[in-house]
Amino acid sequence: MKIGILTSGGDCPGLNAVIRGAVLNGVISHDAEFVGFRWGWKGVVEADIMPITRHDVRGLSKQGGTILGSSRTNPFEGEGGGPDNIQRTLDEHGIDAIIAIGGEGTLTAARRLHDEGGINVIGVPKTIDNDLAATDYSFGFDTAVEIATEAIDRLRTTADSHGRCMVLEVMGRHVGWIALHSGMAGGAHAILIPEQPQSIEQICEWVESVRGRGRAPLIVVAEGFTLDSMGEAHSHKGLDAFNRPRLGGISEQLAPIIEERTGIESRATVLGHIQRGGAPSAYDRVLATRLGMAAVTAVYDRAWGSMVTLRGTDIETVSIADATHSLNRVPQHRYDEAKILFG
Amino acid sequence: MKIGILTSGGDCPGLNAVIRGAVLNGVISHDAEFVGFRWGWKGVVEADIMPITRHDVRGLSKQGGTILGSSRTNPFEGEGGGPDNIQRTLDEHGIDAIIAIGGEGTLTAARRLHDEGGINVIGVPKTIDNDLAATDYSFGFDTAVEIATEAIDRLRTTADSHGRCMVLEVMGRHVGWIALHSGMAGGAHAILIPEQPQSIEQICEWVESVRGRGRAPLIVVAEGFTLDSMGEAHSHKGLDAFNRPRLGGISEQLAPIIEERTGIESRATVLGHIQRGGAPSAYDRVLATRLGMAAVTAVYDRAWGSMVTLRGTDIETVSIADATHSLNRVPQHRYDEAKILFG
Amino acid sequence: MKIGILTSGGDCPGLNAVIRGAVLNGVISHDAEFVGFRWGWKGVVEADIMPITRHDVRGLSKQGGTILGSSRTNPFEGEGGGPDNIQRTLDEHGIDAIIAIGGEGTLTAARRLHDEGGINVIGVPKTIDNDLAATDYSFGFDTAVEIATEAIDRLRTTADSHGRCMVLEVMGRHVGWIALHSGMAGGAHAILIPEQPQSIEQICEWVESVRGRGRAPLIVVAEGFTLDSMGEAHSHKGLDAFNRPRLGGISEQLAPIIEERTGIESRATVLGHIQRGGAPSAYDRVLATRLGMAAVTAVYDRAWGSMVTLRGTDIETVSIADATHSLNRVPQHRYDEAKILFG
Amino acid sequence: MKIGILTSGGDCPGLNAVIRGAVLNGVISHDAEFVGFRWGWKGVVEADIMPITRHDVRGLSKQGGTILGSSRTNPFEGEGGGPDNIQRTLDEHGIDAIIAIGGEGTLTAARRLHDEGGINVIGVPKTIDNDLAATDYSFGFDTAVEIATEAIDRLRTTADSHGRCMVLEVMGRHVGWIALHSGMAGGAHAILIPEQPQSIEQICEWVESVRGRGRAPLIVVAEGFTLDSMGEAHSHKGLDAFNRPRLGGISEQLAPIIEERTGIESRATVLGHIQRGGAPSAYDRVLATRLGMAAVTAVYDRAWGSMVTLRGTDIETVSIADATHSLNRVPQHRYDEAKILFG
Repeated sequence: MKIGILTSGGDCPGLNAVIRGAVLNGVISHDAEFVGFRWGWKGVVEADIMPITRHDVRGLSKQGGTILGSSRTNPFEGEGGGPDNIQRTLDEHGIDAIIAIGGEGTLTAARRLHDEGGINVIGVPKTIDNDLAATDYSFGFDTAVEIATEAIDRLRTTADSHGRCMVLEVMGRHVGWIALHSGMAGGAHAILIPEQPQSIEQICEWVESVRGRGRAPLIVVAEGFTLDSMGEAHSHKGLDAFNRPRLGGISEQLAPIIEERTGIESRATVLGHIQRGGAPSAYDRVLATRLGMAAVTAVYDRAWGSMVTLRGTDIETVSIADATHSLNRVPQHRYDEAKILFG
Repeated sequence: MKIGILTSGGDCPGLNAVIRGAVLNGVISHDAEFVGFRWGWKGVVEADIMPITRHDVRGLSKQGGTILGSSRTNPFEGEGGGPDNIQRTLDEHGIDAIIAIGGEGTLTAARRLHDEGGINVIGVPKTIDNDLAATDYSFGFDTAVEIATEAIDRLRTTADSHGRCMVLEVMGRHVGWIALHSGMAGGAHAILIPEQPQSIEQICEWVESVRGRGRAPLIVVAEGFTLDSMGEAHSHKGLDAFNRPRLGGISEQLAPIIEERTGIESRATVLGHIQRGGAPSAYDRVLATRLGMAAVTAVYDRAWGSMVTLRGTDIETVSIADATHSLNRVPQHRYDEAKILFG
Repeated sequence: MKIGILTSGGDCPGLNAVIRGAVLNGVISHDAEFVGFRWGWKGVVEADIMPITRHDVRGLSKQGGTILGSSRTNPFEGEGGGPDNIQRTLDEHGIDAIIAIGGEGTLTAARRLHDEGGINVIGVPKTIDNDLAATDYSFGFDTAVEIATEAIDRLRTTADSHGRCMVLEVMGRHVGWIALHSGMAGGAHAILIPEQPQSIEQICEWVESVRGRGRAPLIVVAEGFTLDSMGEAHSHKGLDAFNRPRLGGISEQLAPIIEERTGIESRATVLGHIQRGGAPSAYDRVLATRLGMAAVTAVYDRAWGSMVTLRGTDIETVSIADATHSLNRVPQHRYDEAKILFG
Repeated sequence: MKIGILTSGGDCPGLNAVIRGAVLNGVISHDAEFVGFRWGWKGVVEADIMPITRHDVRGLSKQGGTILGSSRTNPFEGEGGGPDNIQRTLDEHGIDAIIAIGGEGTLTAARRLHDEGGINVIGVPKTIDNDLAATDYSFGFDTAVEIATEAIDRLRTTADSHGRCMVLEVMGRHVGWIALHSGMAGGAHAILIPEQPQSIEQICEWVESVRGRGRAPLIVVAEGFTLDSMGEAHSHKGLDAFNRPRLGGISEQLAPIIEERTGIESRATVLGHIQRGGAPSAYDRVLATRLGMAAVTAVYDRAWGSMVTLRGTDIETVSIADATHSLNRVPQHRYDEAKILFG
């Protein structure tokens, strides 16, 4: 078989380990041949294709990013897009199957290509935010949590030295897993996530309670967190910034309000792209390698339209259709658990 | 309630995070009071007891080791040991329950104290080797794998620079999880574990095959690995060392044999105690914190004789009796999976 | 002797190691007694004083921040300030000498207290930016460079995966040492420092040249960098942002201009407070420990008005007056050297 | 000019950064051409030569090891060795100059090739032990100290948890710099170096004094440390092991003696090859890059027979002959300084 691999969407530590796992399993167990599509679906649509040999994946498990490049191109759009054109490209290059590594958009596209076009696709879930319900954890998430936790460890000492409140903004547009785990690991005094809007009054109450215990408050906030509007109803003091067009991240908006309301000097730090770059953690290398290997097994099982996932300690195969209909939100009981630690 | 905590056996990154999770949950949710038994069961037997307040656990989640100290004392041995004496000590100090954090020996003792003495005990599984079947993963394991993987990353470059074979010995007396995961994460060329004896011929064949591909061979071996005696039957060349009393770790025995048989300069490195010390990874901090919190919940549920475990993403409570009867060995399919990568 | 220590200004990895070095040397070699002034000069002015024993400095060398707290209080201001009042406070508490750990402001104040008030002061230079001419390197700088370099390593893989230009903003208000060293260590494609204003044309030329070689451009910019106004004269395209009041850091202003001018998607990351928190590097721990020890030796040498510095591999003592008159700017030949790498 | 580069002796973090610095400076500033000799002097003697382009050194500054390979071959030995043969090889391949990166043996050979054969050689000092007197610090040393310090941090928590004495063995055959610096950085309770033999009585006295203060003793010992024979004269208890042929490192010999004499459970850890592999620290990357660049400048200055060194913050050029006649031993005052901390 000749198998094409693509990586799509925002990059994530472990992408290269998936590629390596797939290629080694394919070449060694099945004598498969591999090509890569450059820049995600763009490479499929534009037939931008490079060979990948066993030699090319040497040492890749610890390398961040993706050797194939990535983009947010949609395979149904643009000239060359759509199932028929894509199938024609695959035929021209003798490619039997596609392993598509990506987030919800990519997996949905993969499912449609299979359902509507009969294209042989296997999905590998990629989400640094851990927002896919189909898998217990996704690769990249552990690395991001580790980096955010190290940042908390560092911010804590500078906060204590100056008696300041520090607000650390981490990734998590729709779900708060990185904030939840790094906040628990680092001992944050408040964890703010999209699933749990809080009023500014509640946040300041937490901050003052920490200060009251003689400590420097440290808040972790997911980028997608929003203030509970109930707070605004009670008082508008310092909230004007929120009504203006957003100039920075949520942390850069929260810090001055906290400072104004509590009188505690407050500083924001936005971790940003550092969370998604660099060498994956050992956990993510193992997970990504196993997912890549399993994707090739799924190819040889001709389990088209399915994706590989982690369940407990096992790698399983599930239908993409079943797997992508809902977000993996932080459940109430997990937030309650974390809140005990700072409540 | 007044709850006593002890940590027993070899130390493990995350012990302090368990203690912190238990104390914070107990104090904040239940207004509990805590004491620590010093040096494991020794502190119970000898009534060596220290108070633990909320203040004492501040910043503990990232601190390696255990503030309570640990030892290998058996609670059934020595003066003051045995269920009756222990119950008397608990009564004298007004202690209502024990949270015992330890490995199979500790958990078995905890179960007996409950079964035979009616003592209120909750167990928390601790095994850096990940050898307890009751839990998907145990805290400390992820940190150990991370440290071993970093060592592999470092050894690889020095191996390549000199064209040497490197043999890294990691923990794992009875099970090979640390070797398996770090070997997969680091891209080892052979992974040797107690569950899978190999002949010296097979090992040298792997080494020579790696060299044949122009690379410097890197082997990860668990301390409990043993050579398959079939190998010895075929040839005794270089195996004399094995018949002498053991002078060092298994890696220090393997390296000279490999060098003698393959002609490739070989070096051993024993990671040793570095794997069990220092700050836990974020993964282990979260897991340990949750287990500590859940142990207190189990106390208030009066689930005596049970232990807390990780299943998938959930913390559950199981009977110690059910949980400690078998070792968590690396299953055949996991070894086969890893072997494809170096086969 | 009874010696008072204070830490003043922004915190810096290594402050606690200085304190530990001073206390251990003082207690063990000279049987000295130590107190700490809380929150910098504020503790001197307000007589906010805590004892420091040998036990208190246990394990401190690896701990970030300062156990004494820090602030920007000026000892000549406020009630209780000024040489006479301070001498009275010292007399009341039987304090024979002050070791003042701080940057240029603190050292200048220390010198004046000595010159004008005859107060027994020894200075220890503290500047994470490495902007004090008196010392080859200052503690904290190496740690900051290490953290910035790790950020570059991480940003590089995400930049490559998306073909983006990344702009990393590091500390350095007046001097560009952190940018220079981390940029050299991380292989940045442009290093922008306060000492070397560049035109936006030059920056975009560097960016396009990197892209032309098929790579994703990575720029390190010190927070104090300013655009060469010559650039503005030639073309105003995209420079409007610079004429508005500053909303974010320099990186957040540069990224959109670069994107607009070159068409290459560009992203900014501001490292911020992470650079000054957390455990110091081994280099900084050794340097800080030695400086703290030497400060106590200077006390017993009654070298009042002097400060301890690093020259080559030696710790020396110099007059504060001689040491604080000029900034340690990046010299032209060091920038030229670095520029060869990205030119 | 066509310049040949070689790396010789034990590998060291930063070798690749030297190569990259040399190649970039040579190609960009001087339009030079580069080749590498494979496996050190072996590649010169056997004319095993590979081209090195600018592209080949991309991303090399953070990569451990050496892309050229290394060995301990002596250029005066073997067929093809000696100045005349080597000059003939250089002529055949049109190579104008050699940049030799290596330790004392390599530099001495380089000097002789220049003095006796008129060969155009520039040296770059490489010693992870920091034992070359010609340079303030050598690249690789900072990384090794950082790794050893991290090991101490980890060992400390496991030592404390079990009340054990830990003995960490680090590199340093003839000089104790790595032990000295990591021991100061990590707060070791005893630092044992080749320059300062100690009696077993003194060591055990230190151990017991630490235990007396309620702490778990941690000793750092350089591999080249030897016991002061005066100790043996007074008492032979437990010293028999020293009279047998050496079976392991010095730490593995010390730990059982300490345990036997003090009754404190003692464990040895040999860091070994981990200290010399892997990514260099930012400090070492900068130093190595600058040395590589300066070596090319020395080539164009035709400063044959000289080597580049670090003096304070400057890279200088000195005669190899002047630079290699003495070892850079830890001076008495530096050991005395460190000893105050544990004395």
